[in-house]
Amino acid sequence: MYEGQLFVVSGPSGAGKGTICRMLIDQVKVSLSVSMTTRTPRAGEINGENYYFITRKKFESIVESEGFLEYAEVYGNYYGTPKQTVLDLLKEGEDVILEIDIQGALKIKEQYPEGIFIYILPPSMGELRKRLTRRGSETEDVINQRIKETLTEVSYIDKYDYCVVNGELNEAVTRIKAIITAEHSRVSHDVYELIDKYREEM
Amino acid sequence: MYEGQLFVVSGPSGAGKGTICRMLIDQVKVSLSVSMTTRTPRAGEINGENYYFITRKKFESIVESEGFLEYAEVYGNYYGTPKQTVLDLLKEGEDVILEIDIQGALKIKEQYPEGIFIYILPPSMGELRKRLTRRGSETEDVINQRIKETLTEVSYIDKYDYCVVNGELNEAVTRIKAIITAEHSRVSHDVYELIDKYREEM
Repeated sequence: MYEGQLFVVSGPSGAGKGTICRMLIDQVKVSLSVSMTTRTPRAGEINGENYYFITRKKFESIVESEGFLEYAEVYGNYYGTPKQTVLDLLKEGEDVILEIDIQGALKIKEQYPEGIFIYILPPSMGELRKRLTRRGSETEDVINQRIKETLTEVSYIDKYDYCVVNGELNEAVTRIKAIITAEHSRVSHDVYELIDKYREEM
Repeated sequence: MYEGQLFVVSGPSGAGKGTICRMLIDQVKVSLSVSMTTRTPRAGEINGENYYFITRKKFESIVESEGFLEYAEVYGNYYGTPKQTVLDLLKEGEDVILEIDIQGALKIKEQYPEGIFIYILPPSMGELRKRLTRRGSETEDVINQRIKETLTEVSYIDKYDYCVVNGELNEAVTRIKAIITAEHSRVSHDVYELIDKYREEM
């Protein structure tokens, strides 16, 4: 029984990593890691699907017991990736997909360097601005701030294994599916099992 | 202008690497590297397509001038991969596919470690024997010898990046196509060009 693989899909806000991950879990046999947060659910958000919505006290006790692969405080709210859930799925041989911002991905890389790190890029800064504006949830100041952050954060791309430009959504998803298939073809434990079988045949 | 990638498709005799490569060049934008040999063409073999058929004298002069990425003498005939042709294609940004046995692949890895090395495996030794027998070109002694070699050569699989079991041909080809797509998504020079464009936009 061999371990599953952890695919970390990361990128700046507005690059489209959320949409890409939702499409992937519909098309590929892979589990999505659900984060925990202390922030209030937005309209339509479902507990256990978008996030696990937990109290600040509960969150801090999980931090205390080193129960997060990574966590961060953003604008006064905590966000974290529960460690045991992810490790259990991998141990059961399931692939796990994890959608996360750049800072979070870098922390996960420290804890789990065997992961496969994919950076989603917008086709241009103009397109990124359009996407962030279309959301309608952020002010122009916040959008300008996000774009500035993006320009800083692309410098971390060296830490990643793959980068995928999300210009045309279906093409980006197809590329990530190819990356998953390719990673399944890596020379790994599984092949030694086959080689043992060759020997038994003789 | 960025370099193409060298995909080395390798495996034991009878694993099906030849058929796989022929299907790949029909389905993917990639050039097949054609080897040089001093052996006599078999019925139906075309010069410049299956091999470049050259004289022993010519071959040895190319060896002399270090013009091969690798070469070997097998049953009294020389076989070699012309270096300049491959390097020129890569420099022009073309991907090159190279079909070669294990020993040859290992020599190419020494000369061109940036290559992507794919090991094609038969689904079982029984199936390998069937395929070698079906060819009808080898005696049972030679087939037994080939199978023994295969069991030795699988120990070199650690030197490879990927392994693909050729049980169902179309599935194997699909996997290699995914590997090619994934390798095109590696964090590479190209992405820095895009990042420069982001900066110019600001």
